[in-house]
Amino acid sequence: MSTLAALTNHQIRLKARPNGLPTRDGWDFTTEPVNEPAEGGVLVKTLAISLDPAMRGWMNEGKSYIPPVAIGEVMRAGGIGEVIASKNDAFKVGDVVSCTPGVQEYILIPADQIKRNGLFKIDTRLGTPTQWLNVLGMPGMTAYFGLLDVGMPQPGETVVVSGAAGAVGQTVGQLAKIKGCRVVGIAGGPKKCEWVVKELGFDACIDYKAGDLKSALRDACPKGVDVYFDNVGGDILDTVMTRLARKARIVICGAISQYNNTTPVKGPANYLSLLVNRARMEGMVVFDYTDRFPIAVAELAGYLKDGRMKSKEDVVVGLNTFPETLLKLFNGENFGKLVLQFA
Amino acid sequence: MSTLAALTNHQIRLKARPNGLPTRDGWDFTTEPVNEPAEGGVLVKTLAISLDPAMRGWMNEGKSYIPPVAIGEVMRAGGIGEVIASKNDAFKVGDVVSCTPGVQEYILIPADQIKRNGLFKIDTRLGTPTQWLNVLGMPGMTAYFGLLDVGMPQPGETVVVSGAAGAVGQTVGQLAKIKGCRVVGIAGGPKKCEWVVKELGFDACIDYKAGDLKSALRDACPKGVDVYFDNVGGDILDTVMTRLARKARIVICGAISQYNNTTPVKGPANYLSLLVNRARMEGMVVFDYTDRFPIAVAELAGYLKDGRMKSKEDVVVGLNTFPETLLKLFNGENFGKLVLQFA
Repeated sequence: MSTLAALTNHQIRLKARPNGLPTRDGWDFTTEPVNEPAEGGVLVKTLAISLDPAMRGWMNEGKSYIPPVAIGEVMRAGGIGEVIASKNDAFKVGDVVSCTPGVQEYILIPADQIKRNGLFKIDTRLGTPTQWLNVLGMPGMTAYFGLLDVGMPQPGETVVVSGAAGAVGQTVGQLAKIKGCRVVGIAGGPKKCEWVVKELGFDACIDYKAGDLKSALRDACPKGVDVYFDNVGGDILDTVMTRLARKARIVICGAISQYNNTTPVKGPANYLSLLVNRARMEGMVVFDYTDRFPIAVAELAGYLKDGRMKSKEDVVVGLNTFPETLLKLFNGENFGKLVLQFA
Repeated sequence: MSTLAALTNHQIRLKARPNGLPTRDGWDFTTEPVNEPAEGGVLVKTLAISLDPAMRGWMNEGKSYIPPVAIGEVMRAGGIGEVIASKNDAFKVGDVVSCTPGVQEYILIPADQIKRNGLFKIDTRLGTPTQWLNVLGMPGMTAYFGLLDVGMPQPGETVVVSGAAGAVGQTVGQLAKIKGCRVVGIAGGPKKCEWVVKELGFDACIDYKAGDLKSALRDACPKGVDVYFDNVGGDILDTVMTRLARKARIVICGAISQYNNTTPVKGPANYLSLLVNRARMEGMVVFDYTDRFPIAVAELAGYLKDGRMKSKEDVVVGLNTFPETLLKLFNGENFGKLVLQFA
């Protein structure tokens, strides 16, 4: 009891809805005392949180697949923590857990919020805490179900993935390789593209900043694109549509190029390529697959163990760096899954 | 022999690729003598041809799902004709046939072109020649396979179809009603909308020209749109995307609003609704389903016989009216399938 009373919880709250890129003055830095859990509750100390493009969407007003973060609320974030006090038989002090701590150092999860918060004990034999935020966490689950259930790649097909150096993209591409596909990434800058090919083992990676993506796609995908896993939207989606193979599948996972737009989203002008090629474009939200997460985790953990897959994280340390660290995502500065580790 | 020698074949050929709407000066009016078929060939006299939005696409240069009509070539058109001379055991004089006569009065189909031309004898007990250009023809086949195979409507779901008074739209809506769906059409003008509800039996029809399609869709589809069968593209597609139900299916069949564009096609800016709603958008081309046409014809002919479905044709007479009659499609003037009957 006395130890908890000595603790202070540092938090970052949403102060105002951003217009365009979210800047430091849109956040409130607050502190709160740390309290003992009530019956059935758990107190978790945050070890690291996941920084995701989807966070930008949560900051907007209006209906999406998940309610927005309210003004004044602690910013939502998934993360990994350690149980430091528990009045719940399912969790004991020292357990490493996955949960939705938000951008704060401690989270008190009452009994009736455990399910909603997504709290579960992780098996650290399967992966490290940061791997549980990456390949074994939401990005990995998104990649797994988006690629396999929606994209349905067949051996020998060509899979293209944008945001190839990001959290979802890295697993999409590596998994598609394991499934016997030719894999072409799209990323920004020659260094990142080189990293995607050398470190992640993609067959090729196109630097969209180099210009003429259309020709580069023609060269890298001589038989056309069978599966396109889209994390970025905008002009890249539109250009890939010009290179679809017959019966192609486009997985709409995100549109990071559009999240900070202050002008309307640009729709894919080449969408009639879907008609000509009898192709389809389908959206996916990872939360629909929660029942099957254990199956995906088991398979992906196996690939991590046998070395067929790598889990690449870009770890930044310090809660207070959150506003600027988040921007790395939108400026395309991260190599691998962006993780904010608490000191 | 002597009777054929007395005949003249009037033809309409593509003179120049149109920029925007195809006007009369883009066509050449030619005549040719009519010749006897060689061994295995058939000579068909055209009774009526089908005027289709897709014709506009065939007039453009460049790759699509079918090669363009060449400059100087007789304009491509599907139609119904009567065999007037035959050196093929499968066809006898007097047979009524479906084929691709093009915009001309007679077509000589050599033995090696019979399959490619799509020549087959129609069963006039199942439907009239104009019904064979409509519900029992390409528009009906497009509606049947697009709705059932790609849209996959379930009883109780809401199906929205644009171009509701057109050839494909009328069958999509009537078939969806038969399958137990709530059916909402989209058409241009109050008269057409009234016709769609009263004559075709749709539950509702929205006049997109009246403005505020979004509110009208909300009122007509209180549970959202489960299947959207898109014949028009453009702003209508984009607006319907704002009203999708969870797991909705959009069938991309055509984009008549965009076919005469001299500016780039407008992509659907609201495409991220596919993500939020886990929805999909898929293109279809009717030629992929030829093997299964007989099944669809049998089912649809049954509905025509028992009165559950109507086949509505807008018949214009006279080969020479072709240039102006074709424009009725793009000006939205046709009520039902537009057919050009030869005098």
